[in-house]
Amino acid sequence: MVRAAAEEFDRFGYDGTSLSRISAVAGGLSIGAVTFHFPTKGSLADAVRDEGRAVTLAALDRLAAGRRSALRTVVDLTLELVRLMERESSVRAAIRLGRERPDTGAWSDAWLPAVRELLEQAHEDGQLRTDARPADVTTLVEHLTSGAEAYLRARLGSGLDYESAVGQLKRVWHVALAGVSAEGHPGLRQPAAAAEEEQEPVLR
Amino acid sequence: MVRAAAEEFDRFGYDGTSLSRISAVAGGLSIGAVTFHFPTKGSLADAVRDEGRAVTLAALDRLAAGRRSALRTVVDLTLELVRLMERESSVRAAIRLGRERPDTGAWSDAWLPAVRELLEQAHEDGQLRTDARPADVTTLVEHLTSGAEAYLRARLGSGLDYESAVGQLKRVWHVALAGVSAEGHPGLRQPAAAAEEEQEPVLR
Repeated sequence: MVRAAAEEFDRFGYDGTSLSRISAVAGGLSIGAVTFHFPTKGSLADAVRDEGRAVTLAALDRLAAGRRSALRTVVDLTLELVRLMERESSVRAAIRLGRERPDTGAWSDAWLPAVRELLEQAHEDGQLRTDARPADVTTLVEHLTSGAEAYLRARLGSGLDYESAVGQLKRVWHVALAGVSAEGHPGLRQPAAAAEEEQEPVLR
Repeated sequence: MVRAAAEEFDRFGYDGTSLSRISAVAGGLSIGAVTFHFPTKGSLADAVRDEGRAVTLAALDRLAAGRRSALRTVVDLTLELVRLMERESSVRAAIRLGRERPDTGAWSDAWLPAVRELLEQAHEDGQLRTDARPADVTTLVEHLTSGAEAYLRARLGSGLDYESAVGQLKRVWHVALAGVSAEGHPGLRQPAAAAEEEQEPVLR
């Protein structure tokens, strides 16, 4: 039911979604069954937001536990966030609900503080160019992530073929990292430890 | 009346706006006076979109007529676009209507082709770093502009103090340009001719 609700909130927004419509698309649940668990639309929206945040935080924890540099972790995280936007309606719904319901809180509240800390760490570790201040790189990350979401939302459901938002962001990072990283492209120089991880190389 | 409509479409979107509400906020015009000029909500939305695009194209023409380098013109244009987002409800409405009404066409259709051409020119003129491809820099520009709009929309009308979106974008360009420009920061090295222009220096 939370999954059906996520798809509705993602597609139609908070105002455009009703409990009766969710019960109809959730495999024909009765409205009574829906309201037994979620007495109001707001409570169901909160559950969807919590699901979208939990998925996001799991990705963050997974990446933060890796052995890559702080800067590399930030780049990988942004790519993973955009991958989640592409695949998880709960994440897209959490983003949209954060915009449309002031009390919901922005989706970026779930991960932007971690990015800020990682970039402070990258700065301390000498991974950032001298005039790339952590606060400015944090703002860059925020802009790129919002830009990827806007790109995706304009194309989802349009029926048109389009480049994946993850592929786009990789191309953008390839350019921007040269302005951010003291080493140029950290993705191009993987330490042996990182090469053992299961993930594909981020930047080619 | 178009101005009143721009403010309504900007704040409440296409579905959330009605001709009767516009007539009420447009200095108490009768609904008959509104429908005399704009028989449908769609025709008024088209007029608002045209106004937002005209304002945008005027800024583009003004900057393209300047004597700055192609790359510098792109940076200045993005800052001017974000300045227009902050000041002009018709521009914000054109952006929002482009998202919410599929037939309206995206606002970026008005200026992104010019950015693409300018960046091809910058590439030919040797202003881009060797591995900063014009297509990738165009995508970067699109992401940064969408990111600035998302930032602004989350804060407009919130009643909270916030950093100007233009100020944010200047900080972001300061970092990203080092990855884009063959010279580092073209804004920091103004030719004598450019210094005579009336505009403030973009990057400090």
